[in-house]
Amino acid sequence: MAPRIVTLAEIEHALAGANLVAAIERGFAHYSAGDAVVPPVGELLFDEPPGDVHIKYGYVRGDEHFVVKIAGGFYRNPELGLPANSGLMLVFRQRTGELDTILLDDGRLTDVRTAVAGAVAAKYLAPRVVERIGVIGTGVQARLQVEYLRGTVDCTNVLVWGRTASSVDGYRRALEANGYSVARAATPDEVAANCRLIVTTTPSKVPLLRAVEPGTHVTGVGTDTADKNEVAAAVFARADLVVADSVAQCRERGDLHHAFAAGAVDAARVVELGDIVRGVHQGRAADADITICDLTGVAVQDIQISRAVLDALRAKESS
Amino acid sequence: MAPRIVTLAEIEHALAGANLVAAIERGFAHYSAGDAVVPPVGELLFDEPPGDVHIKYGYVRGDEHFVVKIAGGFYRNPELGLPANSGLMLVFRQRTGELDTILLDDGRLTDVRTAVAGAVAAKYLAPRVVERIGVIGTGVQARLQVEYLRGTVDCTNVLVWGRTASSVDGYRRALEANGYSVARAATPDEVAANCRLIVTTTPSKVPLLRAVEPGTHVTGVGTDTADKNEVAAAVFARADLVVADSVAQCRERGDLHHAFAAGAVDAARVVELGDIVRGVHQGRAADADITICDLTGVAVQDIQISRAVLDALRAKESS
Repeated sequence: MAPRIVTLAEIEHALAGANLVAAIERGFAHYSAGDAVVPPVGELLFDEPPGDVHIKYGYVRGDEHFVVKIAGGFYRNPELGLPANSGLMLVFRQRTGELDTILLDDGRLTDVRTAVAGAVAAKYLAPRVVERIGVIGTGVQARLQVEYLRGTVDCTNVLVWGRTASSVDGYRRALEANGYSVARAATPDEVAANCRLIVTTTPSKVPLLRAVEPGTHVTGVGTDTADKNEVAAAVFARADLVVADSVAQCRERGDLHHAFAAGAVDAARVVELGDIVRGVHQGRAADADITICDLTGVAVQDIQISRAVLDALRAKESS
Repeated sequence: MAPRIVTLAEIEHALAGANLVAAIERGFAHYSAGDAVVPPVGELLFDEPPGDVHIKYGYVRGDEHFVVKIAGGFYRNPELGLPANSGLMLVFRQRTGELDTILLDDGRLTDVRTAVAGAVAAKYLAPRVVERIGVIGTGVQARLQVEYLRGTVDCTNVLVWGRTASSVDGYRRALEANGYSVARAATPDEVAANCRLIVTTTPSKVPLLRAVEPGTHVTGVGTDTADKNEVAAAVFARADLVVADSVAQCRERGDLHHAFAAGAVDAARVVELGDIVRGVHQGRAADADITICDLTGVAVQDIQISRAVLDALRAKESS
């Protein structure tokens, strides 16, 4: 049987109104409970022009489907007038292996499920009062992380640090059009000094966030390979609670991987986000705690978001 | 830009007339010369119903494209009236990561490139005179291996062993319709006693081929996971030349993996098929030699066959 092919416009339409926080947090819970089969990430690297492609795949036992997601980042594409990110998600039937649906999302679902994971982290780890959201970076994720916090964190003030004035201006215009007020920080340190909820979203290979104040939560999403690093080991060393989407994966990649290498964190102390969701471990315990959540991206997020899209498409068709 | 979506019928049309042996042997040469980037195979296993999905991906440096191939085997599907094999190939642009073409081949290209690899192995390793092709197994690969030998090995007599009379009957009818004469062997040993070119094509987990005569070449294609095993370690121990599509991969899976574990073969003695193709190592040296080629499937075959399909589609469109 020919697979259903879903375009980006249909995907965007399906996403509107779906309860994505619930879908993604259920995914993390499955993952940490051991209900998900999620092999190590496949990776394909390119030198010239530089690019990386990640293949994430897996399934939740007993589900109808399994998912293979391919997502690429080719960072010189904007020079050619092309988006840096690309990709698609493939949904297969778990009982027969048949290809059910091709989600031609051009990487959009990866962007969204990553942003939603940030909201899940904030739901359990952000301080009760957030007066200003701090953002390191000005790219797609810098914008989506803030926008997908809506409904979870009641704050529309953003303090952003970016490398150039023009990238910050573009970022500011995009968010202000959506009802946020955005100020520019001169340094990452200025973000750290003024924000109790900070999201790092860059592909930096040198730590940008070097220290944070008591009562701060940091979500790191930019660092998804072994060589990238945004949050310094010293920040991990001072944290009261260190959380990861996948402890196994963060041994190999992400900011935590560098913190482990520096001896700043004992792996036994790291809690999985899914264990907090399912109540096996407490989230933020005290207002003055420093918490960090390192998100490197797990296939269970891709499974859950493609399922949410399929469910929404079915619901719209049957209504 | 929306990817081109190519149906199975269009793929079959494109394959007709393409020089696939040349395409695949060039792929093996690239692989063994180190020109190909081919990360380890991704694997997703299912218990109930049993199934396995393999994800192979990679690129040849300097090529226009990279390829991700997903191929599934769900062995109870025939009970539901569905083919056991499924899958698709995705062709992306190497310079931008954009999805170029989706080849909806339902696993057909994997079947064909595996059969063509058998022809490449026979081209360099089969004895000069083959009076009877021996086949262990009666599935799709048992048929295609024989059919794709046409043009490489001048022989239309087949001696086949299968578990049941009905499977052998079906196999015989299919091949006889294509001009072959097919006899049934009572045991794998009978195949070994009467054939100097033998192809093993089953998912067996216990060795079926336990000894061969001098002057025999064996191509093993059925064994592609760590637990499958068709060719006994004793056959490897007696071989004059042991060949693999990928020495690295055969340490982890395939018949060779079992032969290594049994101490029957020294890894330093194993020659890569691509090194024979590019003349770095000799193929069959003497009529009386026993040669074995263990094929576990390498992404470079998927790269080459999808490229052959794209080239053929372009040629048909511009003609």
